[in-house]
Amino acid sequence: MKRNIVIAGLGLIGGSLAKAFRKYTDFSVAGIDRDPAVLRAALDCGAIRKAGDERDIAKADILFLCLYPQACLDFVREHLSGIRPGSLVTDTCGIKSYLCPRLRRAAAEHGFRFVGGHPMAGKEKRGFGESDADLFLGASYLVVPCGAAPEDVELLKSVVAPLGIARTVMTTPEEHDRMIAFTSQLPHVLACGYVMSPQCPDHEGFSAGSYRDVSRVANINEAMWSELFLENRAFLVKELDTLLLHIGEIRDAIDAGDRPALQALLQKGRLIKEGLGE
Amino acid sequence: MKRNIVIAGLGLIGGSLAKAFRKYTDFSVAGIDRDPAVLRAALDCGAIRKAGDERDIAKADILFLCLYPQACLDFVREHLSGIRPGSLVTDTCGIKSYLCPRLRRAAAEHGFRFVGGHPMAGKEKRGFGESDADLFLGASYLVVPCGAAPEDVELLKSVVAPLGIARTVMTTPEEHDRMIAFTSQLPHVLACGYVMSPQCPDHEGFSAGSYRDVSRVANINEAMWSELFLENRAFLVKELDTLLLHIGEIRDAIDAGDRPALQALLQKGRLIKEGLGE
Repeated sequence: MKRNIVIAGLGLIGGSLAKAFRKYTDFSVAGIDRDPAVLRAALDCGAIRKAGDERDIAKADILFLCLYPQACLDFVREHLSGIRPGSLVTDTCGIKSYLCPRLRRAAAEHGFRFVGGHPMAGKEKRGFGESDADLFLGASYLVVPCGAAPEDVELLKSVVAPLGIARTVMTTPEEHDRMIAFTSQLPHVLACGYVMSPQCPDHEGFSAGSYRDVSRVANINEAMWSELFLENRAFLVKELDTLLLHIGEIRDAIDAGDRPALQALLQKGRLIKEGLGE
Repeated sequence: MKRNIVIAGLGLIGGSLAKAFRKYTDFSVAGIDRDPAVLRAALDCGAIRKAGDERDIAKADILFLCLYPQACLDFVREHLSGIRPGSLVTDTCGIKSYLCPRLRRAAAEHGFRFVGGHPMAGKEKRGFGESDADLFLGASYLVVPCGAAPEDVELLKSVVAPLGIARTVMTTPEEHDRMIAFTSQLPHVLACGYVMSPQCPDHEGFSAGSYRDVSRVANINEAMWSELFLENRAFLVKELDTLLLHIGEIRDAIDAGDRPALQALLQKGRLIKEGLGE
């Protein structure tokens, strides 16, 4: 079924969505980006059919917000009167408790529909230049209805299904943010803290997969992640405290030369990982 | 040039060395392992020519110690009289300051030669069943002469060169242990501490590459790593304290809602990583 899509923000995620819709669907995609060079690149490679304007927003079946969380709110606020009543607005942000109730309220007040979303796909690089039609292959897509009607949820699921995602997972803003603090935000904090070691600049020749994996996401977009971290402050600080506690326990066992205690702690980690079949 | 090799310990590293020598050289390899099933498997797949005994040790040009560090010392102690004067003994252990001086002393006292070694290759799985002739392709091989004659160092380098290693790096026991604490041991501690989060068992559907990369090596061999950690206690505790400090700084900026401080810390991580061209 042909759909009119508007994507606001053609960075890594928005750009990849545009390229994936182009590759896997016959949807008509208009793209919006504040950077004219990005718009030109997206037009040149065919990722978008046209640079989106108010008329595209007015006739969009679905509006994807692929901006930082605050910028999503700003965008909706600026275009409130232009969003067609009945059209579906969805976001792709990495935090939900802060964002979803605000977008839900705007939707209720202005007659459009809203379902939160978050594709669990990414890269350690940013921007349209890194976007990829196949970024979502095999990924899970988190869907955060926050009270949306079942048909709105089904519409979002049907629109992202052709992107090659492996599964959609229904969740609440709270569960989403508690889990993402652990699965995504914590590794980014870790990576940044890790590379601050005085040994890091000399690692080459002394390192292999372990260094590469832990440090990978240190190549962070600090503007975006500092916003995401602060909008998920409570859950993330709790995860960090849990991690600091557990690393501290292992550190103390090493410092005390307490092999039985150390071995028991490492075994605990192994059994958790093994228990997950990983 | 044909060489007589004895490999003591056919685990992941010893087994991979045996398979790689078989695939890439015409060396004659005898293998020693306390587990008869492992010896049988190594014979069956041709990784070793024969199960090694005292006679093989007596005529070995090179003896590879692929055991845990204490077990390396025990092995050499038990076979001291059998090691041919002039033959080269090398190890593949992940710690050096503790091990190398002891093996160097034994070498000096008993007339054999010793050069420490450490291939920077591994897996999150253990044992001969996981060993792979191509484990060392592209890896760096750390060489720790600790006063060995240049020709002994050259001999080790020439013997491991056919395994497809990308480079050999000459280092001291102290530098080795300081760097390995950061590049290898720290990520293993991190991984174990990370999976201890109460959210971990529920990660599926909410996770992608970040979770996978940080948690990968939680599947740890706790008997081996607790020994390695304790034999590198001072360097590892120092790295852990550095990491706890840096993660704590990021945590405090998040907890305080201090966006400029948080963004500056994340930027610092990014610039380090970028500065390495990674």
